[in-house]
Amino acid sequence: MQDRTYTADAEPGDDATVAGWVHEIRDLGGIAFLILRDATGKIQIKFEKDEMDDDLVETGLGVSRESVVSVSGAVEEEPRAPTGVEVVPESVDVISAADPELPLDPSGKVDADLSTRLDNRTLDLRKDEVQAVFEIRAEILRAARERFREFHCTEINTPKIVATGTEGGTELFPITYFGEEAFMNQSPQLFKQLIAGSNIERVFEIGPIFRAEEHNTPRHLNEATSIDFEGAFCDQNDAMDVAEGVVTAAYEAVAENCGDELEALGLADDFEVPEADFPRLSYEEAIERINATGELDEQLVWGDDLPTEGEKALGDDVGGHYFITDWPSEIKPFYIMDHGDDEELSTGFDLMHPRMELVSGGQREHRHEHLIEGFEQQGLDPDQFEYYTKMFKYGMPPHAGFGLGGERLIMTVLGLDNIREAVLFPRDRQRLSP
Amino acid sequence: MQDRTYTADAEPGDDATVAGWVHEIRDLGGIAFLILRDATGKIQIKFEKDEMDDDLVETGLGVSRESVVSVSGAVEEEPRAPTGVEVVPESVDVISAADPELPLDPSGKVDADLSTRLDNRTLDLRKDEVQAVFEIRAEILRAARERFREFHCTEINTPKIVATGTEGGTELFPITYFGEEAFMNQSPQLFKQLIAGSNIERVFEIGPIFRAEEHNTPRHLNEATSIDFEGAFCDQNDAMDVAEGVVTAAYEAVAENCGDELEALGLADDFEVPEADFPRLSYEEAIERINATGELDEQLVWGDDLPTEGEKALGDDVGGHYFITDWPSEIKPFYIMDHGDDEELSTGFDLMHPRMELVSGGQREHRHEHLIEGFEQQGLDPDQFEYYTKMFKYGMPPHAGFGLGGERLIMTVLGLDNIREAVLFPRDRQRLSP
Repeated sequence: MQDRTYTADAEPGDDATVAGWVHEIRDLGGIAFLILRDATGKIQIKFEKDEMDDDLVETGLGVSRESVVSVSGAVEEEPRAPTGVEVVPESVDVISAADPELPLDPSGKVDADLSTRLDNRTLDLRKDEVQAVFEIRAEILRAARERFREFHCTEINTPKIVATGTEGGTELFPITYFGEEAFMNQSPQLFKQLIAGSNIERVFEIGPIFRAEEHNTPRHLNEATSIDFEGAFCDQNDAMDVAEGVVTAAYEAVAENCGDELEALGLADDFEVPEADFPRLSYEEAIERINATGELDEQLVWGDDLPTEGEKALGDDVGGHYFITDWPSEIKPFYIMDHGDDEELSTGFDLMHPRMELVSGGQREHRHEHLIEGFEQQGLDPDQFEYYTKMFKYGMPPHAGFGLGGERLIMTVLGLDNIREAVLFPRDRQRLSP
Repeated sequence: MQDRTYTADAEPGDDATVAGWVHEIRDLGGIAFLILRDATGKIQIKFEKDEMDDDLVETGLGVSRESVVSVSGAVEEEPRAPTGVEVVPESVDVISAADPELPLDPSGKVDADLSTRLDNRTLDLRKDEVQAVFEIRAEILRAARERFREFHCTEINTPKIVATGTEGGTELFPITYFGEEAFMNQSPQLFKQLIAGSNIERVFEIGPIFRAEEHNTPRHLNEATSIDFEGAFCDQNDAMDVAEGVVTAAYEAVAENCGDELEALGLADDFEVPEADFPRLSYEEAIERINATGELDEQLVWGDDLPTEGEKALGDDVGGHYFITDWPSEIKPFYIMDHGDDEELSTGFDLMHPRMELVSGGQREHRHEHLIEGFEQQGLDPDQFEYYTKMFKYGMPPHAGFGLGGERLIMTVLGLDNIREAVLFPRDRQRLSP
């Protein structure tokens, strides 16, 4: 294509061609400004009506908002312009004229509800603060991968089409696979364990997971991004170290590399990287502290799962990220290992943000006979999982891991209200397109 | 977990605990060696039978191959040991005993067919040369992302559950989505275009794609990894620059960072990074050169798709990566733009490795009315794609992009015979698990 200068790179003294969208036209009478927007920002194009070619003025000021234009001209210093420079146009090309009736106003002056925004995501993403979320999302994923590599992990990709689901309870989306029944995978759990049992030892995967759960809440998606870790010769404490490292890496990377994006989101002044060494509370301590807050109508007792309002009370009490460890075995999945010989106490853990659960993990059951028992106790037929369980007969090391909800991480890092704000094209009960 | 030293880090003079798999036991009579293997390599454990505790010797030498053991002792220099050091054990713990009957021999002394290997992937991945492929795969994906960022691209994740397929012709896997019909996405095409039309402008995605194609060949998968690019204000030449950059980055990263892995694969001496500026042949030149080889029974004429044997003849003739540009419009997808006003000639391109096609791309049709016509000519109902086409009314910039087959890239970088060697758990017509 023709040489093009990003608006952010246009320097006084340059002859430049800038191209982007017509953000706004400000007509002050004898002088008028076209504000052109591209990936890197906005730039002012100055039209002095009496001193310029009529056709040029007509083209530049007659174009509808959100049209794509290319402008060539001299870049000049102009302290009154928003970026300190402006372009004096020699030519204006309308590359792609926009319909004057926009379903959504990318200048953000007119509010739109989430549904309208998602239906018109291209226009929605032309808002600085929406673009910023997805630039930050990309940076968080980059930083997570980098931190995993520092922990000696190898990136893997596991299949999304599977013969059987990982966890009996959760709903699966069925697919037809060349006449056979199959499912979209709800977690890389079994596959990442199979790799941790090989020479590769420590693995991570960032990929889609699919859950046919019916609840429609601001923090659930039916297609989500899972950030998974599994490590041979790791126990739950090692897995917690990795989880804390990856979550912290996300904040650090955003603080370091996303200044403009935090500015666009109004978060630049208050953004904080969480302090290291997240508190590790046992489940027993957690229910005691929740009970002590007096926020629940009924006191929690050993074996209760933590209700949302209990998590909230504890989150307010702790005031930052924290782990809950040593859960009762009966409320953790069967593939989580028990503590030594205590069958009541599991090595499972959760990493909590004050607003919600981010991570679930633990040491895994690596003993073949215990694993088979676990399937049976869960009411699952171990034969259906033989492709997985049989590898546990051939030298499966102790191993531990976790799954971290990618969108929940982005949501909590940025304080987003709705998890759908953290996904380009969310999938929920009501939404299948775009 | 207990402190553990990777075998590659064990230095003479250390007291170390190493843990891993029993690779081999060599009993020479008065002296015997256990070769222990972990993620980083192998280490020799020396047993001097007369000088050591009987229980220790019995445990260390009685353990079955592929069992997981932990060995603590002094690391000593031993020039005759494969790595120049050995461990004199003070204790040996058998952590996870392996069944002596292994379905696959990870030492590689007994060959196994691909199907047996895939059925027992955990054991298969304990071979150096298989592990090496997947360490390299991870490095290639890392390098691709890094190069995309150098091209100012933002990483995106698009939905894998979709309401309609991208390309009419190719088969889709149907899924049941809360009672509605939906599909697993066969390409991020439409979604990445929707983002390229926003402020984000340049995007890449590395993620799974799903194609219900029936052919079962050494170079097709039904679930594959697609490496996608789309850029606003780019034409086909820009997209070719990015494609060449990403492919080259993969080779460069492997050459620079995967010396041990190339060694394990027997490729260390011959590995070459392709030279920059891949030749760009027009389709017309391509068919002329194929015809001139005399390898085909029938001469190709304008409008013919290139048969596999034609690609092969041309690949041998060119001898390296090359592009084919300026394809006849009728054999490229309708969303590829024509050259200026010539409706016969498309901006579509392919990037070829001498062995096979790697990339397909082009400049996209960004003009709303032309796009609608394209859907109609393809026999598709434009109304079904309105979630996509309507964004073209609101300032869609010219844009171009490509899809690069991730496994084909890995396969050609490493000279693998079968694409299934490049995937941990391949999915094809016959294989749905593990």
